[in-house]
Amino acid sequence: MAGNQRIVLAAKPQGLPRDSDFALVDGPLPQLGAGEVLVQCLWLSVDPYMRGLIDAVYPYVKPILVGDVMSGGAAGRVLESNDSSFKLGDLVEGYLGWQLYSAVPAAELRKIDLAHGPLSTALGVLGMPGLTAYFGVTEIGEPKAGQTVVVSAAAGAVGSAAGQIARIRGCRVIGIAGGAEKARHVVDDLGFDACIDYKAETDLAAALRRHCPDRINVYFDNVGGTTHDAVMTWPALDARIVICGSISQYNNPAAEQGPRRLKEFEMWRVRQQGFRAPDYRGRYKEFLADMATWVADGRMRYRETVAQGLAAAPAAFIGMLQGRNIGKQLVKLAEETGP
Amino acid sequence: MAGNQRIVLAAKPQGLPRDSDFALVDGPLPQLGAGEVLVQCLWLSVDPYMRGLIDAVYPYVKPILVGDVMSGGAAGRVLESNDSSFKLGDLVEGYLGWQLYSAVPAAELRKIDLAHGPLSTALGVLGMPGLTAYFGVTEIGEPKAGQTVVVSAAAGAVGSAAGQIARIRGCRVIGIAGGAEKARHVVDDLGFDACIDYKAETDLAAALRRHCPDRINVYFDNVGGTTHDAVMTWPALDARIVICGSISQYNNPAAEQGPRRLKEFEMWRVRQQGFRAPDYRGRYKEFLADMATWVADGRMRYRETVAQGLAAAPAAFIGMLQGRNIGKQLVKLAEETGP
Repeated sequence: MAGNQRIVLAAKPQGLPRDSDFALVDGPLPQLGAGEVLVQCLWLSVDPYMRGLIDAVYPYVKPILVGDVMSGGAAGRVLESNDSSFKLGDLVEGYLGWQLYSAVPAAELRKIDLAHGPLSTALGVLGMPGLTAYFGVTEIGEPKAGQTVVVSAAAGAVGSAAGQIARIRGCRVIGIAGGAEKARHVVDDLGFDACIDYKAETDLAAALRRHCPDRINVYFDNVGGTTHDAVMTWPALDARIVICGSISQYNNPAAEQGPRRLKEFEMWRVRQQGFRAPDYRGRYKEFLADMATWVADGRMRYRETVAQGLAAAPAAFIGMLQGRNIGKQLVKLAEETGP
Repeated sequence: MAGNQRIVLAAKPQGLPRDSDFALVDGPLPQLGAGEVLVQCLWLSVDPYMRGLIDAVYPYVKPILVGDVMSGGAAGRVLESNDSSFKLGDLVEGYLGWQLYSAVPAAELRKIDLAHGPLSTALGVLGMPGLTAYFGVTEIGEPKAGQTVVVSAAAGAVGSAAGQIARIRGCRVIGIAGGAEKARHVVDDLGFDACIDYKAETDLAAALRRHCPDRINVYFDNVGGTTHDAVMTWPALDARIVICGSISQYNNPAAEQGPRRLKEFEMWRVRQQGFRAPDYRGRYKEFLADMATWVADGRMRYRETVAQGLAAAPAAFIGMLQGRNIGKQLVKLAEETGP
């Protein structure tokens, strides 16, 4: 605990980020201010939205500029606290950044109870990706029992949870994922009714017609692009399109072009709605009550892909943007039992 | 009353319909079946959705095939009735088609009370276009007082009513229309806060930024295409996009292409929803209670563009698809005072 190590943005990526866009730098331990908590980061989360932060696309979130520490969720252990609600050894989650140690205001931390699951799940199925899936499905998608739900990036952290939530709600759930292994995982391990391997399909719209004979009631969109286009050729009446993310386009500097499909909106009374996971952070308890129950009783399964050590974070991030991970992509920094 | 005259679809239009796609034909008076009512049509409505019927785009409405009488709303007077709820001389509205006489089931007719307004308004501000505007604004757009509402085709039958309803709800309303005379009409006669003449603007997105400094809370879209694209560059948080029609694209046989803007959906929590006016026909009374009041007290103004005689219907329809009309485009077939 002599000093801190952090990963900073060294250059603004053009398209897909490269290793050289990031740098591992040494620095002093953070100084603890009033009301702040010093946390040793044990697990880092890498998530698609971070690519957007680098491009400053979110009008309501501080962007990541060249020279900044990469921001992102992390889970760790309290080393020192200037706030009475946290004490040495507490396990916490928050936006701690890609670094070994982080000092943050106590109000930005969430205490983690291992009774719900291992610490890593606070960044995955029981964390922001799970929360995103939960409210995206229940509040934006609103699927009804017996309806057909399609989920893209179905083997990813958000998609895998979204599809299982729809299954728990009594829906028929069709995943879309890239590659045979992911498609197998989505059906065999996660229990989706079917999964389309888009890399093996020449005509995704036709595949959707085969798998969804009664059309698509809800589409949970994690990828945008031509996948969204294909779904929009086959909506059911009153279809709901949940715009959660557009990972297929995050590295595309041009405005993506595609068919507008406004006639389909009118004819099929389609509702398409975007949402922002941070807006639901105040409702963690509500989400956790359901989700932890489902994890415990086996109805909600999850997988993690784990990279080792802070230096591996950029490659883990770049790999995730290319769809190399299955389930939640994490970076493990240290054992939970302590240094 | 020796025979009937009707306009049939003579050829399937490619792109913008031409006069030669329609034919005026003579025929016998319709035979009245059980439960049916014989109506003399006095006013015909020509509406954008008819272009879609010819292309069979609506999965839930009978298309217009070559040889069919052009279908559409009309208002007229009962000449003969096999149903006790209608009697000789009653004024009615229904989907009577482009013809001088029509026999339809009584259940498909709506009785018109001239206390609400002249018979022609049963096809305009107090008819389907008004109903479309009313529920599109109140149930899909849901503008709140003080918010900024943008309406395209603002000088048209639906747009003019939609904007005024939003004004009555306390919103700041910006119209988009083609041409100086339409833009003047929208502001001076209809009371919109401003109107953008898109034909005089080289950069519609920039014009929207000037007119909507607080961004766009609700967009009532009657035109689709590049106008929709421009609005989607400037949504406010929780913006609602009402997909009512896409008249800019109805004559375009190719799937329209444009920026997908899914990132904007996510970042600004945009909700885009299509709706279908016929679904609200059962709620005419609710609509009429508000709308007739507003017409009577002068808060809801309307204009009509009237073509004379059945033979003029195709040209009126073609002109409307080109935006030649201001307000509701009608065809007058006979005086209301008798045949």
